[in-house]
Amino acid sequence: MMRRDIQDMVKTLIAKKEDVGGIQHVYFVACGGSLAAFYPTKYLLESESKTLAIGYYTSNEFVQSPPKRLGPNSLVIACSHQGNTPETVEAAKISHGRDASVIVFTYTEDAPLSEYGDETIIYEWGDTSNVAHQKYNIGLRIGFELLHQIEGYEHYEKALSAFENIHDIVVNAKTHVARRAQEFAEKYRHEKLIYVLSSGASYGVAYQESICILLEMQWIHSSSFHSGEFFHGPFEITDSETPFLLLMNEGRTRILDERGLNFLNRYGRKVEVIDSKELGINRLDDAIVEFFNPTLLSNTLDIYNRELANARKHPLTQRRYMWKVAY
Amino acid sequence: MMRRDIQDMVKTLIAKKEDVGGIQHVYFVACGGSLAAFYPTKYLLESESKTLAIGYYTSNEFVQSPPKRLGPNSLVIACSHQGNTPETVEAAKISHGRDASVIVFTYTEDAPLSEYGDETIIYEWGDTSNVAHQKYNIGLRIGFELLHQIEGYEHYEKALSAFENIHDIVVNAKTHVARRAQEFAEKYRHEKLIYVLSSGASYGVAYQESICILLEMQWIHSSSFHSGEFFHGPFEITDSETPFLLLMNEGRTRILDERGLNFLNRYGRKVEVIDSKELGINRLDDAIVEFFNPTLLSNTLDIYNRELANARKHPLTQRRYMWKVAY
Repeated sequence: MMRRDIQDMVKTLIAKKEDVGGIQHVYFVACGGSLAAFYPTKYLLESESKTLAIGYYTSNEFVQSPPKRLGPNSLVIACSHQGNTPETVEAAKISHGRDASVIVFTYTEDAPLSEYGDETIIYEWGDTSNVAHQKYNIGLRIGFELLHQIEGYEHYEKALSAFENIHDIVVNAKTHVARRAQEFAEKYRHEKLIYVLSSGASYGVAYQESICILLEMQWIHSSSFHSGEFFHGPFEITDSETPFLLLMNEGRTRILDERGLNFLNRYGRKVEVIDSKELGINRLDDAIVEFFNPTLLSNTLDIYNRELANARKHPLTQRRYMWKVAY
Repeated sequence: MMRRDIQDMVKTLIAKKEDVGGIQHVYFVACGGSLAAFYPTKYLLESESKTLAIGYYTSNEFVQSPPKRLGPNSLVIACSHQGNTPETVEAAKISHGRDASVIVFTYTEDAPLSEYGDETIIYEWGDTSNVAHQKYNIGLRIGFELLHQIEGYEHYEKALSAFENIHDIVVNAKTHVARRAQEFAEKYRHEKLIYVLSSGASYGVAYQESICILLEMQWIHSSSFHSGEFFHGPFEITDSETPFLLLMNEGRTRILDERGLNFLNRYGRKVEVIDSKELGINRLDDAIVEFFNPTLLSNTLDIYNRELANARKHPLTQRRYMWKVAY
């Protein structure tokens, strides 16, 4: 969807709610990687909004234990790549039944999920996609539009121009890391466990890398740690044999990631860093740059993940349970 | 603090804010286990409140990137066991400076954190404490009081009587698991990695067990998974060699934990279950039982953790970095 489309879509959704008191709550509801894709927008709204209550739920918890106030003043944003994740479809259905507005994100035309959406976003995905049209960025785009149209947002124009530039930044970064991704794969191919750290808007990327790539697609043990939480427990596991992948942000929470880096450089030995700043995210304005770290880090990780899978001869598509057995 | 104390404290905090529009946001701010102790109250308010926006932050992220709306309509609830965690003290200071109301939780009299608190809660802790006066439960007690006094809460009286019974339930459960905790320790003492699962109000207990006990105090690799998220990535790591500790809730999200149990019983072999229902949580009313799972599970885990530490000859107090090196 293009700039004008999202603007108009949000305008229409807001207008529909004018008579009942407007949009007061925004709930992000999905599972796994589809949920993590909304993390930057959750972070944006929690940081910047003066009026909205924000919720972030794995779908089945939302289904079993929906917020009491879910209703006409709620906007629910749900995502399923195939558009048929049963608990996410059910969450959208429940939301629809309570007169919430529902935006569904999916990669699949005519998906069951779309049945319960006031609006359906078909996002782009994969190597040849326009980065600004990937789910991370359409989510953010909706977030900025909600801020702008509901309560005014001083950095709105800066955010809009970021969407013009993010594609080129990401494409350049992916080329830039080609060689080091190969070296990473060579170095870590025999590891049984890799931890992932990040902070701020990018914590969701660390989570996704841990649960969707390492655990799910590579059967490598893993956890994600928030860089700020690392020093309140997890860092005691640090030693020369334990691998850490640190995803560094530019912006306000960079200082948290730097603290992690300093410690790991001192007491760890297997430390791999992907740094948004070094990869060129600073072409974006300081006022909004932090919200765009995740899309750069996530796309860059695609290169690392592909190399890791190749080096391990373990295709990213290989599963033992998912879609194969009843669960 | 007793029943009357918390009632009066919340009443006073609300009254102070009457002229500026009341309490509209509640932010939980702490690090590690101190943060996880507030997870049940975050879950309670997100589920039950019709008016409050809720935030849940690791302290340094809150310090670097505070919510724009943090101000006179905010209530900040911060916790530090020793009362001197620098980023938590700083978070309370920032909140105080923006005219938010601040409640601080600590185990330590005259702590630096208390300097920025409108109210200080000295909670009880350890084996001989009154369970209703532990931080988990005082947090919940404040949560129920906020619901009751700000917007009305239909199950308020049921919640109050739960606090009368929770101590006995916990003490009985701890006795009940003594033997199986020893067997657990014997069985898992040589494991290098243990995953922890839970859902609903108890996800924070799984997180705490993973980062504060296994990683920090036992140097055992670990991650926590939300039972609902497990099937969207992590479950692919399941095999006969990987240990899982499943913390089962009574209440609305039990069905998520049961799905995890069914899968793990089928495809895993090292599966340990601690089940709130089997341990007697059902003495509490159905309408509020789920919010009390965490305190039962967390206290019961103390027995398991002590046995594990003994069996491994790795004291729970042993550290290599925390409080020992600069970080």
